[in-house]
Amino acid sequence: MMMLWCFYRCLFFVSLLNNVDLTSRKHHGKALILDGIIQCTEHDEFSYQEMISFLPLCAHPSPAKVLIVGGGDGGVAREVHKHPLVKEIVQVEIDAEVIEASKRYLPFMAVGFDSDKLTLNICDGFQYMKEHKDEFDVIITDSSDPIGPAVNLFTESYFGLLKGALRSGGIICSQNGTVWAGLDHVKETMEHCRKHFTTVKYAVASVPTYPSGQIGFVVASLDERDLTVPKHRFGEKELGEMELRYYNSEIHSASFVLPNFVRKVLQ
Amino acid sequence: MMMLWCFYRCLFFVSLLNNVDLTSRKHHGKALILDGIIQCTEHDEFSYQEMISFLPLCAHPSPAKVLIVGGGDGGVAREVHKHPLVKEIVQVEIDAEVIEASKRYLPFMAVGFDSDKLTLNICDGFQYMKEHKDEFDVIITDSSDPIGPAVNLFTESYFGLLKGALRSGGIICSQNGTVWAGLDHVKETMEHCRKHFTTVKYAVASVPTYPSGQIGFVVASLDERDLTVPKHRFGEKELGEMELRYYNSEIHSASFVLPNFVRKVLQ
Repeated sequence: MMMLWCFYRCLFFVSLLNNVDLTSRKHHGKALILDGIIQCTEHDEFSYQEMISFLPLCAHPSPAKVLIVGGGDGGVAREVHKHPLVKEIVQVEIDAEVIEASKRYLPFMAVGFDSDKLTLNICDGFQYMKEHKDEFDVIITDSSDPIGPAVNLFTESYFGLLKGALRSGGIICSQNGTVWAGLDHVKETMEHCRKHFTTVKYAVASVPTYPSGQIGFVVASLDERDLTVPKHRFGEKELGEMELRYYNSEIHSASFVLPNFVRKVLQ
Repeated sequence: MMMLWCFYRCLFFVSLLNNVDLTSRKHHGKALILDGIIQCTEHDEFSYQEMISFLPLCAHPSPAKVLIVGGGDGGVAREVHKHPLVKEIVQVEIDAEVIEASKRYLPFMAVGFDSDKLTLNICDGFQYMKEHKDEFDVIITDSSDPIGPAVNLFTESYFGLLKGALRSGGIICSQNGTVWAGLDHVKETMEHCRKHFTTVKYAVASVPTYPSGQIGFVVASLDERDLTVPKHRFGEKELGEMELRYYNSEIHSASFVLPNFVRKVLQ
């Protein structure tokens, strides 16, 4: 706790709306906070955005059409745009205020909305998927924590909706908490996912400003396949051109390697 | 920051000495704090202790004699004791107060001092190594952060001392900060190490209560060898019998896989 204070040397706080806040910190840069929970900071947002995007994209041999559910800061769109095999991105975000706040205060993330591959809809993702079945190769759910409305994005029925919206061979990736302070919930979410998906795996990424300094993802496919080995591997030069600061093919595989106390519960 | 407060629901603070503090928290259990910096908490200490111990032990084909520099809480001794090939452990800790505090308040760590393989010396590790050359297969440096006296444990001369105390084929492992808030220092320490060691690698472990939620280790050998592949692999049954909650052979290799922003600087 004391060491964390050392990071925050200079702070000013801008409160825009009831539940959307932005702050700026000398070490961490700008931070987006929803309902009191840090969603991203300028310092380390890239690890989350890159991993939630490239884990499913690179596990798929040809991720032409991608759906993003949530992701109102624009970070996932920014990353998905980079993948050379992605032709079309549809994003469904229910909260226009987050988008506007991001465009105004987090341009390094909102740049994702400038993607010429992107169609952005302000709407209910649940309803959208009911009306767009069998359409997508990859669906990424970039949600807030399962507190409040977002709790519905971790349910069995939600994974059923994802399944319906996927094309054959489709892959999903959803934010799925931290094993250090919510292992039971991680397990429960994966069990919900297993009701609809054949292969279900858990991967982790280092994100210092998130609780426990780590975030996990459930990555799943309709068919049986090895999600831990990327089908598309980028060389050093490509990684540099795409400005990927975290993701690489080796860390793709390594991110699925879990400590024993987690394996015992999840596998 | 706000989420971190959610972890600390119940707190009482016991100040024993000038710079050694212990606290107790409902979620994290007891915590040892030296000079205001968290050294370990009951909740997540095992990941650090297991990795700093088993990375070098399992990278070595026959780690018979092990030196621990520092480690006054007993956690490293506890882990090193478990390895079936370890016959003898020598520990040198300069601060008897830490040992006494650990024995009194952190019995789950101080149990390491009960190892029948262990000889514990209260002395200066630098002086000890000058007098014990060519003796050890593995040397583990479990130090506090490079602030104050511990800064000497990250210097080129220190790595020279380690080299002198190692037997042929010897391997070292030292705590080496976090890439998220001290990448320059991590790089500098590794460069110091490279002046004396042929193979020098960096590995990471997840430790939520440390700054950035992650700690790194420099692992090095006098000769050229692949430190990322364990020479000794434990099966599931063995891992259970040794009560290893974090370390396994797959995470040994995975821990050396680094994100791009780190690779660019360290490799």
